[in-house]
Amino acid sequence: MSAQPSRMATAATPPSDRVRLRRKRERGSYDREAIDAILDEALIAHLGIADESGQPYVIPTLHARSGDVVYCHGSPASRTLRTLQAGAPACLTVSLIDGLVLARSAMHHSANYRSAMLIGRARPVEDPREKRAALRAVIEHIVPGRWDDVRPPSENELKATAVLALPIEEASAKLRTGAPVDDEQDYALPAWAGVIPLTSEPQALQPDPRLRAGIAAPDYVTSYRRPGRP
Amino acid sequence: MSAQPSRMATAATPPSDRVRLRRKRERGSYDREAIDAILDEALIAHLGIADESGQPYVIPTLHARSGDVVYCHGSPASRTLRTLQAGAPACLTVSLIDGLVLARSAMHHSANYRSAMLIGRARPVEDPREKRAALRAVIEHIVPGRWDDVRPPSENELKATAVLALPIEEASAKLRTGAPVDDEQDYALPAWAGVIPLTSEPQALQPDPRLRAGIAAPDYVTSYRRPGRP
Repeated sequence: MSAQPSRMATAATPPSDRVRLRRKRERGSYDREAIDAILDEALIAHLGIADESGQPYVIPTLHARSGDVVYCHGSPASRTLRTLQAGAPACLTVSLIDGLVLARSAMHHSANYRSAMLIGRARPVEDPREKRAALRAVIEHIVPGRWDDVRPPSENELKATAVLALPIEEASAKLRTGAPVDDEQDYALPAWAGVIPLTSEPQALQPDPRLRAGIAAPDYVTSYRRPGRP
Repeated sequence: MSAQPSRMATAATPPSDRVRLRRKRERGSYDREAIDAILDEALIAHLGIADESGQPYVIPTLHARSGDVVYCHGSPASRTLRTLQAGAPACLTVSLIDGLVLARSAMHHSANYRSAMLIGRARPVEDPREKRAALRAVIEHIVPGRWDDVRPPSENELKATAVLALPIEEASAKLRTGAPVDDEQDYALPAWAGVIPLTSEPQALQPDPRLRAGIAAPDYVTSYRRPGRP
């Protein structure tokens, strides 16, 4: 996220020129395993569409990867979903912030991060079985273990929900890890330098005020953590 | 982020039709104070641009609000920055995830979140004084208190950095707070329901392996927290 060298050295061939990493290529990767891990750990995605005038819109949304696609869902009346269903080109980006990189000079400050970007056109999911599986994937993406404990979608709920599948074909990952990298002469400066690691941490549970008496929070709630997190 | 009622009731007049909240309007706001608070607390933004073919790209970036603009910076060679400097329409979205909303039915699962979206065209910042002030704003956005402890940008560093200002004119905020909202008959189900609050928490500091002996981490590092966070 700033003009710095990096610790990342994995880079294969880009699947298309559109996702070819132009800047700081040494931070990038087209490796599916790396891309999938970032998609799976990130809680939300930012979905980009453009209108006819070329005006882009970036919308936060819950998502879930399932095999070679990423599912999103929403109201069939949503502008974003209608645009995507009509076959408009899309971009889906997820980003994880792992730490703040404090260098001795202003310009070498940065963030340690992992991000993945997919571009392509989404396919509307019409088949009720795939739709249900997609919604299950989204719920299990948010809280693994949750699906079996809740009422599944009714036929009417399925009909009232638009689901889209974006293929993981044109995709890339980018990351920065490790300590700050300063200009050699700046290492003599008296400033503290290092990384403030950041993680998304669950706080004290807030049970629904209407929770029935005697229902304890299950293990997947009390010991909640993001997939991929140690 | 899913089709649910909400606790939010503030909504004024949209500054343009393009940022008018179409879906779940009761969750939205055009209030500058609300928008500014979300921009200030969020560590990163997702910046959307579209190429000539209408293909959108969504790029994570560090940002900083200063008065009525949001600054971003990067290499003058970056595709994103060159596109923005050429006056292309842009969208900048920031999102904070405050919690996971576990309902008794699959379809009423959601996230508590706050997001802000700006659309418009960015202005290239050429004046060295404004450029320096913008970079200071970005550093202070990441770690408040940091700027005075580090070497400021040199003239060459300033020249080698592109800075853009996106006006906060066409903007909206959206949020969800509070407990799950289930269908009335589902409250009888035996599933646990409630919210898992999530916050971004600093972990044990990682001092630079090349940190000079005897330099302690300053208070703004040891007691780091996001602005706006209690």
